[in-house]
Amino acid sequence: MVKHDRAMTANVSIPLVGDVSGRRIHIEDVFPLVDAGRFPVKRVSGEPVEVWADILRDGHVVLAAELLWRPEQTDQWSRVPLRLRENDRFTASFVAPRPGRYLYAIEAWTDLFATWRRDFLVKRQAGMDVALELEEGRNLLARLKPRDDAPARLIREVCRKPNLAEEPAPLLSEELATAARKGAQADLTRSAHYPLIADRPIARAGAWYEMMPRSQAATRGRHGTFDDCIGRLPEIAALGFDVLYLPPIHPIGRTNRKGRNNALTAAPGDPGSPYAIGAAEGGHDAVLPELGTLDDFRRLVRACAEHGMEVALDFAIQCSPDHPWLAQHPEWFKRRPDGSIQYAENPPKKYEDIANPDFYGNDREGLWRALRDVVLFWVRQGVRIFRVDNPHTKPFPFWEWLIREVQRVDAGVVFLSEAFTRPKVMKALAKLGFSQSYTYFTWRTGKQELQAYLSEITGYPEREYFRPNFFVNTPDILPLHLQTGEPWIFKARVALAATLSGNYGIFNGFELLEHEPIPGKEEYLDSEKYQLKFRDWDQPGNIKSYIGRLNRMRRNNPALLQTSRLRFAQVDDDEVIGFVKESASGDNAVAVAVALAKEGPLEFWFHFGEIEIGPPESRQRVKSIENLVTGERHILEWGGVRLRIDQQQDPVLVFRCFA
Amino acid sequence: MVKHDRAMTANVSIPLVGDVSGRRIHIEDVFPLVDAGRFPVKRVSGEPVEVWADILRDGHVVLAAELLWRPEQTDQWSRVPLRLRENDRFTASFVAPRPGRYLYAIEAWTDLFATWRRDFLVKRQAGMDVALELEEGRNLLARLKPRDDAPARLIREVCRKPNLAEEPAPLLSEELATAARKGAQADLTRSAHYPLIADRPIARAGAWYEMMPRSQAATRGRHGTFDDCIGRLPEIAALGFDVLYLPPIHPIGRTNRKGRNNALTAAPGDPGSPYAIGAAEGGHDAVLPELGTLDDFRRLVRACAEHGMEVALDFAIQCSPDHPWLAQHPEWFKRRPDGSIQYAENPPKKYEDIANPDFYGNDREGLWRALRDVVLFWVRQGVRIFRVDNPHTKPFPFWEWLIREVQRVDAGVVFLSEAFTRPKVMKALAKLGFSQSYTYFTWRTGKQELQAYLSEITGYPEREYFRPNFFVNTPDILPLHLQTGEPWIFKARVALAATLSGNYGIFNGFELLEHEPIPGKEEYLDSEKYQLKFRDWDQPGNIKSYIGRLNRMRRNNPALLQTSRLRFAQVDDDEVIGFVKESASGDNAVAVAVALAKEGPLEFWFHFGEIEIGPPESRQRVKSIENLVTGERHILEWGGVRLRIDQQQDPVLVFRCFA
Repeated sequence: MVKHDRAMTANVSIPLVGDVSGRRIHIEDVFPLVDAGRFPVKRVSGEPVEVWADILRDGHVVLAAELLWRPEQTDQWSRVPLRLRENDRFTASFVAPRPGRYLYAIEAWTDLFATWRRDFLVKRQAGMDVALELEEGRNLLARLKPRDDAPARLIREVCRKPNLAEEPAPLLSEELATAARKGAQADLTRSAHYPLIADRPIARAGAWYEMMPRSQAATRGRHGTFDDCIGRLPEIAALGFDVLYLPPIHPIGRTNRKGRNNALTAAPGDPGSPYAIGAAEGGHDAVLPELGTLDDFRRLVRACAEHGMEVALDFAIQCSPDHPWLAQHPEWFKRRPDGSIQYAENPPKKYEDIANPDFYGNDREGLWRALRDVVLFWVRQGVRIFRVDNPHTKPFPFWEWLIREVQRVDAGVVFLSEAFTRPKVMKALAKLGFSQSYTYFTWRTGKQELQAYLSEITGYPEREYFRPNFFVNTPDILPLHLQTGEPWIFKARVALAATLSGNYGIFNGFELLEHEPIPGKEEYLDSEKYQLKFRDWDQPGNIKSYIGRLNRMRRNNPALLQTSRLRFAQVDDDEVIGFVKESASGDNAVAVAVALAKEGPLEFWFHFGEIEIGPPESRQRVKSIENLVTGERHILEWGGVRLRIDQQQDPVLVFRCFA
Repeated sequence: MVKHDRAMTANVSIPLVGDVSGRRIHIEDVFPLVDAGRFPVKRVSGEPVEVWADILRDGHVVLAAELLWRPEQTDQWSRVPLRLRENDRFTASFVAPRPGRYLYAIEAWTDLFATWRRDFLVKRQAGMDVALELEEGRNLLARLKPRDDAPARLIREVCRKPNLAEEPAPLLSEELATAARKGAQADLTRSAHYPLIADRPIARAGAWYEMMPRSQAATRGRHGTFDDCIGRLPEIAALGFDVLYLPPIHPIGRTNRKGRNNALTAAPGDPGSPYAIGAAEGGHDAVLPELGTLDDFRRLVRACAEHGMEVALDFAIQCSPDHPWLAQHPEWFKRRPDGSIQYAENPPKKYEDIANPDFYGNDREGLWRALRDVVLFWVRQGVRIFRVDNPHTKPFPFWEWLIREVQRVDAGVVFLSEAFTRPKVMKALAKLGFSQSYTYFTWRTGKQELQAYLSEITGYPEREYFRPNFFVNTPDILPLHLQTGEPWIFKARVALAATLSGNYGIFNGFELLEHEPIPGKEEYLDSEKYQLKFRDWDQPGNIKSYIGRLNRMRRNNPALLQTSRLRFAQVDDDEVIGFVKESASGDNAVAVAVALAKEGPLEFWFHFGEIEIGPPESRQRVKSIENLVTGERHILEWGGVRLRIDQQQDPVLVFRCFA
C-alpha cells in the first residue's frame, strides 16, 4: 500500500517504454523558480519564503503535501504542511534563519484515511448503509504505520475499541484524521530539490558611496591614504550611506602604466590606473604602499563598522605586466607566437597595461583556487562585499564556482556584478550567483524607458534572482544628462536611484555636481582613475544635505529598502514619473513623483488607480498621503491628488501613504 | 582546446562544490517546451516546427549553434543551423516527416576560427599591425580537426599556402570560415533532449458525428446493427463529417443492468447501458451480438473509409459484473470485506452495473498489458481513433504508458480524453499524451467567458499540448441553453464549435433539435444510453443543411482546421462575439461573427484593429471581407465594417478575409 515513487530527482526524466511505475501525483508550476530550478532563487534571511505549487492526481482522493526545506550542507529536512488554496494550488512558507544556501522541495501523497473519511461522511449524510465502509475504515487504520509515536498510540487506541460499528465517533475524529495523515503515504512523490540563496539584508538594500582613496588627502597634491579615508567617515556616515566602496587598493604596475586621461605613456609621478593590479610590492593580496599598510586598511574596516558602514572592495582579476603571478605562474597567462604576453583587448581597443589570465590553461585549477583565495584573504581582513570588475569577460562556470566557494566559508559575502553588456549576459551572471548587478539605469532617463526597464527587472522571474544597484555615475561614466551640471538633474537622478532601487550608489564628486567631460564622451575629464584629485568636500552648491535626507527617508521607510514591490502610478504629465513602493509586510508604503525635465514648475494629477496597500489579509486603497519633507497631508479625491513640482526647489516629492 | 561539456542531459543539475568543469554556454528559454521538457509538445507531421532559444556565453566570442532532431527510436540526429535573430535569440525549424515521437535538442559551441576572423578584420580595418594575429590564425587553422572530408581538404589546402603572411585572402574567405565552423567546437554544450509528438492531421482538426448504433435501425423497435450504420454513411458523409464516433459496441452486462432513464432495475428487453461492458458473449474485444459480428464491424470501418471518414471507438475501461475478466482475473478487481465486488462510485453516487479494475493490484502489469492489448486489438480491426471514457479516474502513469505503447505500434492512433473535471487534471491528461480533449465549451455561452476560455487554451504553453474538441452535446449532456429547442441557438452553438475549434462534434439528434430533458437536469429524457430510439433523420426543421454548409466551409478554409491561430475582434455589442482565424502558412484567413442572444436583429461594428494577415514576411491589415454564404463583399472603413445579424435567418456570419 505504501508506495515510494522512485523518481525522487528532477522533474524532467522521460518515462521508459514499458515503465509502469511512473508517478501518479503531478507537482507542477512550482513558484518561485529560476529556469526550472537550475539556478537559485534569492531571498534575505529571516523573511518568509512563500512557495506555491499545483499538486494533482487522477481520481477523487484527498491529497496531502508538505514543503520541505533545509540548509544545503545538512541532510535533515524541515517540513511545513502545504495548504490547498483553490484550483489544485497549494501554498506554504518557510523562513531561512541564517544567510546561506538552502534547498526546498515539495512532497505529496494520497491521504488514504482522509479519503476514506470524507467518502464515509458523504455516504452517511446521504442515508446510505455504511456498515461495510466502517469495516473498511477500521481495516485501513489497522494497516497504517505512522512514523511518530503519538499518532501511533492514538491509532492503536482507536483500533482496539470493540464497538466501533455501533459507536464510530472515535474513528471519525479530527484528531485521528491528523494522526493518520502520514500513516499511509500512498503515491509518495517528491519534486526536484530547488536551490535558494538567503543573503544578508545588505544584499538587497544599501546606499553606496564610491570613492578613490588616492583622492581623499586633506591637502592638495598629497596621495590619499587609508587614514585620510578614515578621516572622511564621519561625513559619509552622517549622509546615511551604508557601504563605502573602494576601487582596487593594490600595488599598481609600472610597465605600460597609463598617464593622465588614459594616455598611453605615463609622466613621471603619474600614479597609473588602480585597475592595473600588481607590481614588485605584490599582487591582489597586497596594498599599495602609498595608501598605507594592511594594518591601516584593517583599521579603516573597523572604523567603518563603528560608523555603521561596511567596506566594499573591488575584485578586478586582470594583472599588470609586473604582477608577481606572471613570473611565479607563467602557465596562467597566454603567450603570443612571438612569446609576448597576450594583453586584454576588446578589438580594436587594446589594454596594454593589463593581461587577463587564461581561465582554461594547463593549471586552471591552480589559477581558480588562487583567485578564490584572494577573495578569502580579504574576507579574513573583514571585507564582506565585493564589487566585481567586468565579470562578463570571465567564464560563467568560474563565477558559479567562486561565489559558492566563498559563501561556503562566509555565507554573508555579497558580490556585485559590474557587467555593462548584453541584457541576457547580465541576467546570466545574476543567475550564477551574483548578489547584485549594475544596470542600464545610468542611461535611462525617459518615463517610458524607466517604466519598461523597471517592469522588466521587477517582473517574474527576474525579481527572483536579479537585484539592481542603480549607480548615477561611476569613475568610467559621466552620463550625458549630467554634463550640464544643473542641480535639479543631479537631485532628480539620485532620488530616482535611491527610491526606485533597493541598492544605489554615487561616485565621489557627484555630490559636488562634478560634470566636466572629455569632450564628446561620457567620461570624466582628468579622471582620478589616472591622477590624484583634490576637492573641497563642502564647496558651495553641493547637494550633500539633499542626499542625506534621501538616505534618511530610506532608513525610515522599509518600502524603499527593496526593489520588486513597485507599482507605477498614472501621472497625466509625460515629464513626471510616479510610483508606489511597499514593504513586504505591508505596513509601510511610499509614493514618489520625480520630474524628468527641466522646464517647470509642473502641475499634475497623480492617480493611485487600483493600487492597494496593507497586510495581505486586509488590502485597501490609498486614502491619504503625507509629504515626508514638509509634513503636508493630502486627502485623495477621485483616487488621486493634484501635485506641483518646482524643479528649482526640488524635483522630487516623496510621501508616506495611508489606507 | 576542443572541450566536450560533460553535462549532456538535463538542465537542472546543480554544479558540485569545487566543480570547475561547468558549462560555459547557457542555452535558456527554449521554445516550445511543456513543463521544461517533461512532457511532449504536439505538432502535426509534415509541418515546420519552429524552435527558439537564448544562447549566450561570457566574453566577446562568435557562437555557433545547431538544432538537432530525430525520431525517438533512432539515434541518428539531423542537424539544422540555428541563426541569431537579435538579443542572443537563435531560431531554426525542422519538419517531422511522419507521425511519431521525436526528440529535439540544441547544440552550441564557440566558433574559435570565426572569432579570430572577426577580430582580425576589425583590427586590420582600424589600421593596426596584424602580423602576429595572422600567425595566430594560421596556427589555429592548423589545429582544427573537422569531422567531414570536404572542409578538411580546404583547410589543409589553405594551411599549405606558403605566402599567407603576404596574401592573407585565402585565410579570410567565407568558404574557409564555413569549413572551419565545426572544426573547433570549444565549449560544446548540448541542451536536454526535448520530446515532441507529431500526429496525423486528424488529431488537430476533424468534425465528429457521434451516434448510438443501437438507434440506427431503419424501422422502429428494431435494434440497430452495423449494417444500419453503414446505411447512414452516405448521409453523414454528405454533411461533411470526418469522424464517426460510436459509444461502446461490446456485450452488455446483465447483472444490475440499468433500465430506462437510468432506473436501478431493467425491465425485460431493456438493452442496458453500453458502458456496462462485458457479458457471457465476451468483453472488451467482443461485439454485442445484436449489432452484428466482428466481420460486420470491419465492413463498417471499410465503408467509412470509402466515404472519406474514420471510425472512432470508445475505450471505457469499466467492467460489468458479468465481464469474463472477473472470473479469469479476480486479482484485477478489489473486493470488499464481505467478499463482494467494489463497484465504481463517486460518493454518494454508486454505479452498481460497473466495476473499475484495481490498477495497482497484485497483477498490475498483467492488467495494464491486457488493456493495452484491447486497444491494439481494435487497431488491428482498422480503428485509429479512440475516445477514452473518464480517463481522469484512472492513474496518470497508466495513460502515459498506454498511449506510448499503442503509438509505438501505430504512431497514427489518436486518443480523445473525455475528462470533464478540474482544469489542471484535464490539462495533465493532455500533457501525458492524449491527442485531444473534451472541454468546458459545452457550458460556455457568454462572450467574456468564451473569450477567456479560448484565450487560455490557445495561449502558451497550453496550445502546445492541449487540443480541444468542442462538443455541443453528448449522450450525457443536454446543456440548459439547448433546452428551449430554438433553431437559432442550435445553429449558433454548432457554428461556434465548428469555427472556434479545429475539432468539434455533435451527438446524433442535435441536428433534429432534440431538446427534451429530464426535468431539472442537463440530461436527455429517454436517453438512448438505456433504450433504443427511433428517429426520422429528415424530419422537418432539421438543420442538417446548415451543418453541412459549416463543414464545407471548414474543408475549404484551412484557417478553420486549427485552433490556436485565433484573435478576437472588437465588436461593439456584448451579444455578438467576433474573431479572426488564420492558417499557419498565412494564405487563408476567416472572420466570424456569432450572435449569442435571441433578441434581434443585431447591428454592430466589427473592428479588425491591429489584426494582420498573410505570410510571415509580408503581414498586412485586413482590407476587405467576403461573405462565404452570400458572396457579398465589404471594403473595410476605419479598420472595420458594419454588420447585421438576423438570428431567425442565421445567427452566424463567416467571411474570407483579404489583405
